Amino acid sequence: MRTGIEVEEARRLVLDGVAPLPAETVATVDALGRVLAAPVASGRTLPPADCSAMDGWALRAADLASASRAAPRRLRAAFEVPAGGRAPRPLRPGEAARIFTGAALPPGADSVVMQEDAVAEGAEVAFVAAPARGEHVRLAGEDVRAGDEVLAAGTKLGPAQLGVLASLGRSVVRVHRRPHVAILSGGDELVEPDEDVAGGRIVASNAYSLAAQCAEAGALATNLGIARDTREELERGLAAGLGADLLVSSAGVSVGDHDHVRPVLEKLGCRLVFWGVAMKPGFPLTFGRFDDGRGPLVFGLPGNPVSAMVTFELFVRPVLLRLGGQRVLTRPVLRAVLGETLRKNPGRLHFVRVTLAREGERFVAKSTGNQSSGVLRSMALAQGLLVFPAAASELAQGATAEVIVLDADVLAAPEPA
Amino acid sequence: MRTGIEVEEARRLVLDGVAPLPAETVATVDALGRVLAAPVASGRTLPPADCSAMDGWALRAADLASASRAAPRRLRAAFEVPAGGRAPRPLRPGEAARIFTGAALPPGADSVVMQEDAVAEGAEVAFVAAPARGEHVRLAGEDVRAGDEVLAAGTKLGPAQLGVLASLGRSVVRVHRRPHVAILSGGDELVEPDEDVAGGRIVASNAYSLAAQCAEAGALATNLGIARDTREELERGLAAGLGADLLVSSAGVSVGDHDHVRPVLEKLGCRLVFWGVAMKPGFPLTFGRFDDGRGPLVFGLPGNPVSAMVTFELFVRPVLLRLGGQRVLTRPVLRAVLGETLRKNPGRLHFVRVTLAREGERFVAKSTGNQSSGVLRSMALAQGLLVFPAAASELAQGATAEVIVLDADVLAAPEPA
Repeated sequence: MRTGIEVEEARRLVLDGVAPLPAETVATVDALGRVLAAPVASGRTLPPADCSAMDGWALRAADLASASRAAPRRLRAAFEVPAGGRAPRPLRPGEAARIFTGAALPPGADSVVMQEDAVAEGAEVAFVAAPARGEHVRLAGEDVRAGDEVLAAGTKLGPAQLGVLASLGRSVVRVHRRPHVAILSGGDELVEPDEDVAGGRIVASNAYSLAAQCAEAGALATNLGIARDTREELERGLAAGLGADLLVSSAGVSVGDHDHVRPVLEKLGCRLVFWGVAMKPGFPLTFGRFDDGRGPLVFGLPGNPVSAMVTFELFVRPVLLRLGGQRVLTRPVLRAVLGETLRKNPGRLHFVRVTLAREGERFVAKSTGNQSSGVLRSMALAQGLLVFPAAASELAQGATAEVIVLDADVLAAPEPA
Repeated sequence: MRTGIEVEEARRLVLDGVAPLPAETVATVDALGRVLAAPVASGRTLPPADCSAMDGWALRAADLASASRAAPRRLRAAFEVPAGGRAPRPLRPGEAARIFTGAALPPGADSVVMQEDAVAEGAEVAFVAAPARGEHVRLAGEDVRAGDEVLAAGTKLGPAQLGVLASLGRSVVRVHRRPHVAILSGGDELVEPDEDVAGGRIVASNAYSLAAQCAEAGALATNLGIARDTREELERGLAAGLGADLLVSSAGVSVGDHDHVRPVLEKLGCRLVFWGVAMKPGFPLTFGRFDDGRGPLVFGLPGNPVSAMVTFELFVRPVLLRLGGQRVLTRPVLRAVLGETLRKNPGRLHFVRVTLAREGERFVAKSTGNQSSGVLRSMALAQGLLVFPAAASELAQGATAEVIVLDADVLAAPEPA
């Protein structure tokens, strides 16, 4: 097992060999945000026939060749084509058919004139200009032809993709399964949110913030509850999560006597890959895996609330996204101007919780205050994580630094005036 | 009723008087993405007492004043403070107590030395350096004090906020109600996805793409189904949606004889505010409201799939976000370089569906192809909507234009090398 590795190396190790989960079949209406596990080919041609893009009159463009405002051309109003219905017969030269958006052109017609550009006069219709041939006609297959690949494997299903699937009559769809995550909290001092905190007990709140981080990454989280800090309880708790795709423990945060997590994981058959990443917050991170896929990927996260969230963000989130089939595993990163001078001891890479304020074209980053890894409130205020390089000891006010954007609302355009 | 208004004016009219919906009480675990309707004050002080931030030894800093590597100072190992438990008695001068992360400091102790910096020697512990007073101690109330406002009204609940609520023992929370949207499809040619499309029928796919757009905006959509294009069926269908917060119809797309939607809305008591917005796709958009809040906000969207999605994006989405209590109603907008020359007739503002490719520091926008508003595939490929100003007729390759970013993945940082 390696220890004290760099952040990028840790990221490489956790993603090593991670591939999208197998496919499952789900209802298209429930597939928002999921990723296609197989390409979708169309069984239909859309539009199925040449059809009108407007409410108006279907006709032959050649019949209006001489039409002008000075000398309108009149055609016989022959029949009406109902939307979703068929023309009773082909259109003859000198005739126009009333037609509505989406209705199939009658045989013989080649163009549509918008109703605003025509005047019905009893059994006739007057036109003052000739349309271009094919005007306001949507050609058969303009959207899709039967057999075309319409959506590629790996496509993320948003509203437009779901609309396309519906239009093809695909009411079920093959998507990558969502990752299942089991979350275990470990510690003698922990209680559930509805329990008494007298005597220095604290709520196992990590299970709640981590479950929400799982949900945002498209995963399904199971809260295994709290294990007391004995080998037996931890083994029972961790064993209960071995059926998941990913097992997250926020017990045994440090190197203390009470850190039973690592030996218990090894007893369960987990191969520990690394312990400790050169970062702050979050050094005491453990990662392990079961050989040949015989168990979940295992993350032993630090117990401090901020450390748990930051290490989840950097290492667990990209794994969950890739398991779900997503191709984009990163957040937006912007270069922000420091609104105040930041200092630290050189050595470890720091992720500083910052707010981001838009000032004209640039963003100004300021610390959310107390950067103690126990202070979850500072994480609740954070819109980004500022990357304070390992070797640096000072980032001066007015200098720039990279910030990982946690709150996408930061990037939204200012309201129109 | 006004007609042919500009996009910004339409946006102002639809948002006029829209306020967040009333509060409801929901389980905190189900509140991800919701917005607080009332501030949350803490009933607890966290940490509840001065406690250790490390596994190590609690002691008095003054006892180690003279400690050095050359002359280590030894303290008596007095007792152990269990995590979540209490010290059996105060710490006396010359003593150190074994302590674990999160445990309350024994009375008398003021500092913690990490266990890595101490050597246990039987009944004694040797230290080679003096800590700063207060080192590795989290002070009572460092995170939050009882009575503090912890989260302000209007706060969006992300993972960190849910963790904070859990840590305060708040298992339920007051949030703005989610908007309810009723969606009616209208047209004789429409069928459901599992029905036969023979004879020029088409699937009412708008109900599916619009419902997904509702879900992305935090709203709950009800699909009212398909109404045939008669006054009676439309009235029955629209009346079924009057209990919603927002009623969306994608029937009666144009000004045709079959456009019964507007008179039916007026008969139901809806006051039409405008019809027609100077944009493409999407001109034939109707907006109405019921006076004194006696009914839903009503949007009559164009029937063409792309027009329906684009008008939803520009006008319905911000309304839903504000109803749900969100403060940010816009998408990110970036200035992209045109990868090809775009042309149109001057007059209307166009929203061109484009892909966005990152090239170094800039984004290059290219049309997704056929911009016919019937071609939903082009919307499925679109990562953004390029704003082609009304008066312009050409945007030359290499020029820049504003693009509304629909797919936030576009903004993600490139993968680390």
